[in-house]
Amino acid sequence: MSSQRVTLRDVARRAGVHPGTASRALNPESRHLVKAETAERVRQAADDLQFHPDPAARSLKTRRSYTVGVLLPDLNNPLFPPIVRGIEDTLGRHGYVVLLGNTDNDEDQERRVVEGMRSRNIDGIIVATARQRHPLLDTVVAADLPVVLVNRILDDPSFPSASVDDQRGAELAVDHLVQLGHRRIAHIAGPQDVSTGVGRLRGFEEGLRRAGLDPDPDLIVVAETFTRNAGRTCMAALLQSGRSFTAVVAGNDLLALGCYLALEDAGLRCPDQVSVVGFNDMPFIDQLRPPLSSVRIPHYEVGTAAAELILDRISDHRAPVASRVLPAELVIRASTAPPVQL
Amino acid sequence: MSSQRVTLRDVARRAGVHPGTASRALNPESRHLVKAETAERVRQAADDLQFHPDPAARSLKTRRSYTVGVLLPDLNNPLFPPIVRGIEDTLGRHGYVVLLGNTDNDEDQERRVVEGMRSRNIDGIIVATARQRHPLLDTVVAADLPVVLVNRILDDPSFPSASVDDQRGAELAVDHLVQLGHRRIAHIAGPQDVSTGVGRLRGFEEGLRRAGLDPDPDLIVVAETFTRNAGRTCMAALLQSGRSFTAVVAGNDLLALGCYLALEDAGLRCPDQVSVVGFNDMPFIDQLRPPLSSVRIPHYEVGTAAAELILDRISDHRAPVASRVLPAELVIRASTAPPVQL
Repeated sequence: MSSQRVTLRDVARRAGVHPGTASRALNPESRHLVKAETAERVRQAADDLQFHPDPAARSLKTRRSYTVGVLLPDLNNPLFPPIVRGIEDTLGRHGYVVLLGNTDNDEDQERRVVEGMRSRNIDGIIVATARQRHPLLDTVVAADLPVVLVNRILDDPSFPSASVDDQRGAELAVDHLVQLGHRRIAHIAGPQDVSTGVGRLRGFEEGLRRAGLDPDPDLIVVAETFTRNAGRTCMAALLQSGRSFTAVVAGNDLLALGCYLALEDAGLRCPDQVSVVGFNDMPFIDQLRPPLSSVRIPHYEVGTAAAELILDRISDHRAPVASRVLPAELVIRASTAPPVQL
Repeated sequence: MSSQRVTLRDVARRAGVHPGTASRALNPESRHLVKAETAERVRQAADDLQFHPDPAARSLKTRRSYTVGVLLPDLNNPLFPPIVRGIEDTLGRHGYVVLLGNTDNDEDQERRVVEGMRSRNIDGIIVATARQRHPLLDTVVAADLPVVLVNRILDDPSFPSASVDDQRGAELAVDHLVQLGHRRIAHIAGPQDVSTGVGRLRGFEEGLRRAGLDPDPDLIVVAETFTRNAGRTCMAALLQSGRSFTAVVAGNDLLALGCYLALEDAGLRCPDQVSVVGFNDMPFIDQLRPPLSSVRIPHYEVGTAAAELILDRISDHRAPVASRVLPAELVIRASTAPPVQL
């Protein structure tokens, strides 16, 4: 505590390099400009001397906190951990750390979380909670805080985003069921105030039309949330409605898990009596009963793309808005089979 | 941008309260001292005036960043999201935000992540990566940074920790299998440099002894990592060894998932030929094939306890070290059944 402050110059001397080289070696954003061996020697010297760059000085110089906020609905949705890893790994390579915030889709909580992030002077925010009408986003834009949407998109094209081709994904699910011989296909749609719910419903309907089938509004049930409970409720309602169907496309895997439960409740077997397709291909669904056919999205790469986009925005707030839409693919497992012959 | 800075006094005037009351209402740590209705009126006034407390001023006054680092091996292990939620929800109520860092159990990466956190002046760090020998922890202690261990503990009692009674949990698993009639019980143990691996192995052996059975070293295989792949490899090795057994206690659920795969590879059925018990009761394992019996740990409450402990340490670095060990319970599903009669 009373020891004299170690300076960059001390570190450079110990490592036998120019102070400018030591500075570059210790800055994550410029480390690649220095030979790996030299960088390691500088790092070792910094460790030996217990040198810690003064964050206030660095922030003053760059006017950056090297901190990015990530706003999620709920980390417990297995969709998010790999996305967060993609974000954190990429930002970490550029010297940034991640402030995590869960909103539970509650506006008050979201506002509190974002205020907390802003008071730490975050350089930008990655938002996985975007709804079509979202006052928060207006606030963030008004504050000139760089923002990137992840997983979800808005009709408003002024926000950069990293997302997945939801419509095409749902079309793939329908194509697969049609090829198996299904004609009466239901959809447990996700919430319709978010793009993942809307895009997948659109893809579901488009897939049917392309197969020459008319979407039957009575076979579409909209879930209030992307949860297992909501899936169970919606599937139970569909079964009780008495409308006949032989397959269902679920808006995501959690809704599909709920479909499994409702089918079991009703004494029906998947895929023998009803085929089910999920969306997201979340971890370990290959070991479900039955293993779930699902639309796979490249979670980690979606996170990586979001991180790259926010780094671009932080470098230049006025850069042209760029967005990336990653492809979806269908993974066929044992929850889908030809319909029972009547 | 050129508008005059809004002060706390302006907010107090608009809300019709004393500035001291407004200050308490806007500080998450003292909000509970103000009537809810008054606090809401102050918050509304602050919103209307777009008042943002100056974080530099607050930090200067309290010498705190109101930021806590959370160090994980890998967020993709389904054990961690609910723990992180427990931490974040609790810290959030006290005005703190969470900096998240994944280490992949790599020492270099861990050091980089912790350096990044420290240069943001975190007030404390919650560590889920603790190994028995862990140079990082010495560094953190030397820096007088408050630290709390979560999920894992050390033999060294000088670290506060929030964990689960791993030994008792494994004993419960063994008791259950013994009651079903199993006598030849194997254990796929977790890594032995971390307390979760050690405690569960100890509980496995103790459970056998209490049932009057001798632990057979040939029926204990130690996994290198807590992953599905490691579980598959260890179970395959055990099957190939030719030692007979009718049940296995897996060191965690991911190892149990690997056991399922190895049994399937070998053409064996669970629980008909081999019973399997997991550990952690991670989400959705009730829908696995077969639904996995598992030792349940109160994830969210473990996170909550860790957050409370770090808040105590931040308030008083020299407070007596407190630790909390939460109880485990067994959830019996369809992966365990009486052994086949020979």
